[in-house]
Amino acid sequence: MSLTHFDADGHAHMVDVSGKPVTARVAVAEGAITMSAETLALITEGRAKKGDVLGVARLAGIMGAKKTADLIPLCHPLPITKVAIELTADDSLPGIRVTGTVKTGGQTGVEMEALTAVTTALLTIYDMVKAAEKGMVIETVRLVLKDGGKSGRYEVSR
Amino acid sequence: MSLTHFDADGHAHMVDVSGKPVTARVAVAEGAITMSAETLALITEGRAKKGDVLGVARLAGIMGAKKTADLIPLCHPLPITKVAIELTADDSLPGIRVTGTVKTGGQTGVEMEALTAVTTALLTIYDMVKAAEKGMVIETVRLVLKDGGKSGRYEVSR
Amino acid sequence: MSLTHFDADGHAHMVDVSGKPVTARVAVAEGAITMSAETLALITEGRAKKGDVLGVARLAGIMGAKKTADLIPLCHPLPITKVAIELTADDSLPGIRVTGTVKTGGQTGVEMEALTAVTTALLTIYDMVKAAEKGMVIETVRLVLKDGGKSGRYEVSR
Amino acid sequence: MSLTHFDADGHAHMVDVSGKPVTARVAVAEGAITMSAETLALITEGRAKKGDVLGVARLAGIMGAKKTADLIPLCHPLPITKVAIELTADDSLPGIRVTGTVKTGGQTGVEMEALTAVTTALLTIYDMVKAAEKGMVIETVRLVLKDGGKSGRYEVSR
Amino acid sequence: MSLTHFDADGHAHMVDVSGKPVTARVAVAEGAITMSAETLALITEGRAKKGDVLGVARLAGIMGAKKTADLIPLCHPLPITKVAIELTADDSLPGIRVTGTVKTGGQTGVEMEALTAVTTALLTIYDMVKAAEKGMVIETVRLVLKDGGKSGRYEVSR
Amino acid sequence: MSLTHFDADGHAHMVDVSGKPVTARVAVAEGAITMSAETLALITEGRAKKGDVLGVARLAGIMGAKKTADLIPLCHPLPITKVAIELTADDSLPGIRVTGTVKTGGQTGVEMEALTAVTTALLTIYDMVKAAEKGMVIETVRLVLKDGGKSGRYEVSR
Repeated sequence: MSLTHFDADGHAHMVDVSGKPVTARVAVAEGAITMSAETLALITEGRAKKGDVLGVARLAGIMGAKKTADLIPLCHPLPITKVAIELTADDSLPGIRVTGTVKTGGQTGVEMEALTAVTTALLTIYDMVKAAEKGMVIETVRLVLKDGGKSGRYEVSR
Repeated sequence: MSLTHFDADGHAHMVDVSGKPVTARVAVAEGAITMSAETLALITEGRAKKGDVLGVARLAGIMGAKKTADLIPLCHPLPITKVAIELTADDSLPGIRVTGTVKTGGQTGVEMEALTAVTTALLTIYDMVKAAEKGMVIETVRLVLKDGGKSGRYEVSR
Repeated sequence: MSLTHFDADGHAHMVDVSGKPVTARVAVAEGAITMSAETLALITEGRAKKGDVLGVARLAGIMGAKKTADLIPLCHPLPITKVAIELTADDSLPGIRVTGTVKTGGQTGVEMEALTAVTTALLTIYDMVKAAEKGMVIETVRLVLKDGGKSGRYEVSR
Repeated sequence: MSLTHFDADGHAHMVDVSGKPVTARVAVAEGAITMSAETLALITEGRAKKGDVLGVARLAGIMGAKKTADLIPLCHPLPITKVAIELTADDSLPGIRVTGTVKTGGQTGVEMEALTAVTTALLTIYDMVKAAEKGMVIETVRLVLKDGGKSGRYEVSR
Repeated sequence: MSLTHFDADGHAHMVDVSGKPVTARVAVAEGAITMSAETLALITEGRAKKGDVLGVARLAGIMGAKKTADLIPLCHPLPITKVAIELTADDSLPGIRVTGTVKTGGQTGVEMEALTAVTTALLTIYDMVKAAEKGMVIETVRLVLKDGGKSGRYEVSR
Repeated sequence: MSLTHFDADGHAHMVDVSGKPVTARVAVAEGAITMSAETLALITEGRAKKGDVLGVARLAGIMGAKKTADLIPLCHPLPITKVAIELTADDSLPGIRVTGTVKTGGQTGVEMEALTAVTTALLTIYDMVKAAEKGMVIETVRLVLKDGGKSGRYEVSR
């Protein structure tokens, strides 16, 4: 098997998608950041009283999705038509779970946009809370759904 | 305890670091992406024959470090003086381990730059190999060293 | 009434426009910067002799329109097909009036692109002349025309 | 009088500040967006219930300050050390008043950063509420304080 | 003859392409960087042993193509669908020849994207080897092929 | 001899300059674009009557210098303190000669900033005049002066 991002000589290129049809595409990615229960309490209680960590992370994730083609060298620029970020405190981690959904009408998929949205949101949580705990860990960032386009539906059972 | 990225009213702000001294600072972050042994073989064998996935990821990580203040809403722009990314194939995962080292002479630390470098490199690996395997997972992204500045040395025992 | 940029839980999102048709759209915005008659004379006389303030501001406005989705968090990236900026010295202010016209063939309107073009041009005038007068004021930036798309034509009588 | 952004031949240039000392500098700018009382109520009531327009605008303003040298052609890139944005609902307009404060330790002032922060926050409010009212107007954007550097303190009496 | 990037009053504008059809377009540009035979040997031998200068330049060229509308003031943002960069050592120069190919499905051509890809790759070679030789020269950067769109095929005989 | 942009294993990195002193640095680069005498006349006559090609190219060059660290993968971000672009019509080419001067007070040189400024200005001239002549060629882009820093003065006799 060969890797599509390299040509026959092994040189990196941005794959030619000009012959592919414009179709409706969606991708969903997820990930989490784990922390101590005390730090998680700072975030969840802070929402009302001290400052909205999750609101800042959500916005960072949405804006991060728009920077995907700038960050990932061989990504095509795509006309993103929707970005939504869901953030949920989970006491069982303890930590925050993030899900990112991105849509486009384009010639290639938005997996990287969804994954970039999720990681940007997670990095932003780290940034905002790192004064309280440096040992937080970003975990299990993965694609959970991809649909639209010729390669068909991909879905992880959760 | 309060979170430094919010003021007394709970409003987000970019923290005033103008009174802090300019000191030499370093941060090191790490993370990994797990995949099947077959996919890992595609990367490690491809290096010589089909295309240099790790070389592309390394460059993406270096350039990603320079975009940190653009991606993370409350980060200060800093004059980065060094970025190095180490990528190692690890059959025991199986997958690729990534370490990112960033230095600055500035008024605040470069933890976020190191973490952004690592996640950008990991996302780029995902992008380049996703045609072979969509189920790869980004794992255990964390800060392992921070030094310089008033808060002193932070180091994770590895 | 609810605000479209928030979901049912009050969380910000980039609105899903994937079901909207691609149509020809146009938006026109305007604004002004007021200054002393002496400062205005520096600009209008300078055009020929000392330097083209309005030429620089025009270019900044055009380039600013292209950065709209990067600046405004919930804006969709759009394929802009035209940007024109008109700058007129107005002795009755005294000051400069700016009008910006933007077109696209996309799934949502270009109001924000037109408003961003106008404010970027106005800020650039401020920057270039501030050594002469710091008290200049940006005034009355507003949308004056929007057409194309389902919500129909919006026009301010001027 | 000549304009500093042009050389003796009337050509635009980025002024040479390499001989100026690095000093602590601050700038404060302000502005407002006017709207109907009904629209203002949507924002102020929405804060708690439907979505935080002002929180999104605050973040956009902070991030906008960091993009100043990218937007304004002849601005020097500066190491910003603080950005804070204050947003206040004012029933007497009716509308929202925005104040932006920016600090740096650099060789030239941060007036443009403060003005860009304020206009970006105001444009973001427009974007988020435009579905309810297209006739909102951005008003009276101006510098209110500048200090540090050789030209001394500039302050508008408010 | 008039220049299309100026209106009837001689003011720069981004040309209105909204009435033009979306068609498949391609452009190819080329250029070279000349250096001493010793420096060229450093690059060609280094590929295997010391570091892949051409691999870094290729990636920079691909990413540079995506920044064209950000760099060239009156360029339209276009949905690039392919970028490929070919780099060849040429002992007869001595130096490196670079060819860049860009495709889009858009309303205007990608000549500037191909030229920007080539110059970015050439500048990156300069950057990476400048410690060995500062006297390298970028030469003969030109468009060699353009096709698609109303103005028809343009091709330089090589 | 080894190349500084690679480590001992041949991996690209952003060179550690954190131990280097902050000194005043300057770099000057030059280049040209050749065209037919008729096209050159369009530019030189147009300045007064039809539109200021050279004014647009100058601004693009200045803004291009600020994007250097974003374009060239291993460049350090630097606090640029001056950019000036000189454009001269030369009937003997026929064409336009461009010289770019950049200053910084930093830990590494601004050669790449000067070269990027010149190539961006030349590309912008191509863009603005390409409707009249596609066969223009960018020629002889090179560093002509570098001073400041430990490696001493480099100057090309012109």
